[in-house]
Amino acid sequence: MENPRRIALEVAYSGHAFFGFQRQPGFPTVQGELEQAWLAVSAEPVTMIGSGRTDTGVHARAQVVHFDTWSRIATQQLHKALNAYLPEEIVARRAVEVGPEFHSNGSAIGKRYVYFLAVSDTRPVLANGRMAWERRAHLDLHAMRQAVPHVIGTHDFGAFAAAGRATADDIRTLQAIHLRSIRGGFSFSFQGTGFLYKMVRNLVGGLMDVGRGRHEPSWMGEVLRSKDRRQGAATAHAEGLYLWRVLYPKPIFGPNRRIRPDNSE
Amino acid sequence: MENPRRIALEVAYSGHAFFGFQRQPGFPTVQGELEQAWLAVSAEPVTMIGSGRTDTGVHARAQVVHFDTWSRIATQQLHKALNAYLPEEIVARRAVEVGPEFHSNGSAIGKRYVYFLAVSDTRPVLANGRMAWERRAHLDLHAMRQAVPHVIGTHDFGAFAAAGRATADDIRTLQAIHLRSIRGGFSFSFQGTGFLYKMVRNLVGGLMDVGRGRHEPSWMGEVLRSKDRRQGAATAHAEGLYLWRVLYPKPIFGPNRRIRPDNSE
Repeated sequence: MENPRRIALEVAYSGHAFFGFQRQPGFPTVQGELEQAWLAVSAEPVTMIGSGRTDTGVHARAQVVHFDTWSRIATQQLHKALNAYLPEEIVARRAVEVGPEFHSNGSAIGKRYVYFLAVSDTRPVLANGRMAWERRAHLDLHAMRQAVPHVIGTHDFGAFAAAGRATADDIRTLQAIHLRSIRGGFSFSFQGTGFLYKMVRNLVGGLMDVGRGRHEPSWMGEVLRSKDRRQGAATAHAEGLYLWRVLYPKPIFGPNRRIRPDNSE
Repeated sequence: MENPRRIALEVAYSGHAFFGFQRQPGFPTVQGELEQAWLAVSAEPVTMIGSGRTDTGVHARAQVVHFDTWSRIATQQLHKALNAYLPEEIVARRAVEVGPEFHSNGSAIGKRYVYFLAVSDTRPVLANGRMAWERRAHLDLHAMRQAVPHVIGTHDFGAFAAAGRATADDIRTLQAIHLRSIRGGFSFSFQGTGFLYKMVRNLVGGLMDVGRGRHEPSWMGEVLRSKDRRQGAATAHAEGLYLWRVLYPKPIFGPNRRIRPDNSE
């Protein structure tokens, strides 16, 4: 008997429709929808393993999911078959066959998240659900950028984990944070070896407090060193956050065929 | 007795929630929602006059609406009071007092519409409802740009009006069309003195057919000269279209305080 094929999928989803990635009986989740869709395609029950759990409301531009299948469906057609059964808030963008040693989370060497924040005194109706909203007319981009070096590097990030979630192993490496002006607001991108539960949103909340002038940029370092979540700022809203990219030692999907004339990656 | 104040509002809305701009009893429309909201603010029935009717599903980034009021609400607070009663798909972004000679449509010297088109072989779930979707992997931008000069200028645009809507006065001046690559697809911007019903979407449909290679760029001129809607391409979907800006001899809202570091305008 042959071995099953291991398939990696690139999956995008709009987080508002789901109670996060991880399957929960009775609630719509991304994992649950993917597994049900595959069952509809091939009558084969599988476990779809994601590179990480995104929280309720968090979007994904390029989540990576792997699963094992005995089906004979051609790999190039596989994501299209899945899409025929997925709800409109989820799409499988690409599928490749990977070796049995590949694991969407275990093989990842890093992740990139991007947070989009609209800054305006009225609701950004055209970005509703796609960007978070800061009602003030001004956030000080220069001050927020000055705060970045205070959290970059390998640290215990317990102070930026969800309240009550700090554990014995909160050491992570935050490789880069880039803050950019975009039309109507800002984007914040974060690249690191891994992220604690709510860590990105808590970092954004802290940077926003610096941008509002509530704290000096160096305060971000003080919060970090305190290892105490209660020292930090409010958690930024989920609707602005996107799992942007999962990084592997070499790209698993090959050259990117999508149009990307700007420098967003 | 004094005269009423004439107020101009800049209004943004997400078109999917409405049966277009114009009031229709029994259906949610942008005009109807604005008038109801003002009634809730001031107990004063008014007619909100827009710079033009946007069609069902068409969005507006900056529709301009005027109305006359006897209320004493400070002009700077007026749009905020309105927003408290508007549904989440509509927002009044700015309010100014204008002279009694101002008319949102009659005073306009031009309009700009922008059409956003995602081009990918899978659904653009993160732009769902905000961009139209072309399933092909490729549209020839160069060919589409070559088609532009064939429709720029002052012409009878009856061939690009909605079927059955060509009238005795279909002469309009199309001043500029700009096609740009954006992440995930293209944007098409149109500036002109005025637009016939469905004219922008019919122009986009024609340009897309040229981009797909179905017709030579010069075909757009042939369609124009035919003055026959049946010669043209399919109407592009409403969800990609935005009323972007209404142009007046001088800007009515004063300097733009919103963040706009890019060159989108």
